[in-house]
Amino acid sequence: MTLAPWRSPLARALHQNRSLVYTRYLQLATVRLDQRPANRTVVFRGFLEGTNTLKFVTDQRSEKVEQIAGLPWGEACWYFPKTREQFRLLGQLTVVGEHYSDPTLTQARELMWQDFSDNGRSQFYWPVPGQPKAEAITFNPPEIETEVSPGNFCLLLLDPERVDQLELRGTPQSRCLYQRDCNQNWSVQDVNP
Amino acid sequence: MTLAPWRSPLARALHQNRSLVYTRYLQLATVRLDQRPANRTVVFRGFLEGTNTLKFVTDQRSEKVEQIAGLPWGEACWYFPKTREQFRLLGQLTVVGEHYSDPTLTQARELMWQDFSDNGRSQFYWPVPGQPKAEAITFNPPEIETEVSPGNFCLLLLDPERVDQLELRGTPQSRCLYQRDCNQNWSVQDVNP
Repeated sequence: MTLAPWRSPLARALHQNRSLVYTRYLQLATVRLDQRPANRTVVFRGFLEGTNTLKFVTDQRSEKVEQIAGLPWGEACWYFPKTREQFRLLGQLTVVGEHYSDPTLTQARELMWQDFSDNGRSQFYWPVPGQPKAEAITFNPPEIETEVSPGNFCLLLLDPERVDQLELRGTPQSRCLYQRDCNQNWSVQDVNP
Repeated sequence: MTLAPWRSPLARALHQNRSLVYTRYLQLATVRLDQRPANRTVVFRGFLEGTNTLKFVTDQRSEKVEQIAGLPWGEACWYFPKTREQFRLLGQLTVVGEHYSDPTLTQARELMWQDFSDNGRSQFYWPVPGQPKAEAITFNPPEIETEVSPGNFCLLLLDPERVDQLELRGTPQSRCLYQRDCNQNWSVQDVNP
C-alpha cells in the first residue's frame, strides 16, 4: 500500500503534541437510527498494519455499533492543541467482532486485546453501557478470565476517503483537502480556510 | 427560565479547566446532505441570555449552514482534559443571519459581532471557505467597514434536549444522563459508563 499524503502531517502533529496525554483522543461523529447526529470521544489505537485505516476499540453493546450497522460512515475530528491543527477524517467504519468474516481483521482484533491493559479489559465485563446504574458489585465481577477476548470486545476501523487539514497558526490560516478517488489515488488541494 | 441541571457541572468543568486556552473548543457533529456525518471544532461563545442555549459563530458560506438547513440537529462533544470529563449535548440548531425573523436573536447576533475581535471579524471578509485557495491579496481586503456586521456573519445556537456527562476519573467511571421532556422539565439519571 501507499502511505496516504495526509499521513505525514498527521504523524508530525502526533509527535509535536506527544507531551499531552490526551493527544490520542479525538471525536467521532456517526448518525443515529433516527437520523440525528451522534458524537463522542474515542482513543486512537494506531493504524491497521499496512493500511491507512485508523484503529479504535468499542463495546458491541454501545450505541455507536447499532448506528454504524445503520450507516457505516463516520467523521473523526481531531484537534491538536499545541500546534493548533485540526484534521477531519471522513470515511467508512467497520466493526470487527469475534465472528467477523475476514481472518486478518479478527486476528488484528485479538492482537488489540492482547495489547490492552487490565484496566481497559475490565470495562468489557461491566454491565450494559447507558442502562440505569447497576449495583457497585456488578462492576467488580470475580474471577474473570481476561486472556481470551470477550465477545463484546470489538475493533473499530475508520478508512478515510477525505481528510481536511486546517492549521490555525498564521493569517490567513492554511487549509488543505486530501481526497481519494475510485482508483484509490489521493489528490491534494489547498483551499480557503 | 430555569437553569438546566447540567449547567452547574458544566460551569464547574469550564472553571476547573480555565487554564487551558482551548477549553472553549468543542466538536460539533451535523449530518451532510448526502446523509453522512460531519464533524468540526467550534468555539463556545457563552449562553444566550436567560436560556440554556449555547452560542457559537459561523459563516453563512460554510458547509454546516446548508447541512443545518437540511437537518437542524447537532451533537456537540466537549472533552475537558484537566478534569477528564466529557459532555455530549444533543439538540436543535438555529442559524441566525441578519434577516432572521426574531428580533431578540438578531440583536444577540449584532451584540456578538460587537464583542468580536478585529482578527475574528476579518475572516468574514475572506474568500469562500473550502474553495480552491484564492490569491493572497484577497485575504487582505482594503478598507473594510467592520462596525456593521457583514451579511455572512451568523450566530449559531444549540438548544440541548439531552446531555450525557461522563467522568473518566474513578473506577467505575461516573456517567449521568439529563433529558428534557415535552413539558421542558429535565430528568436526571445515573447510568452505566
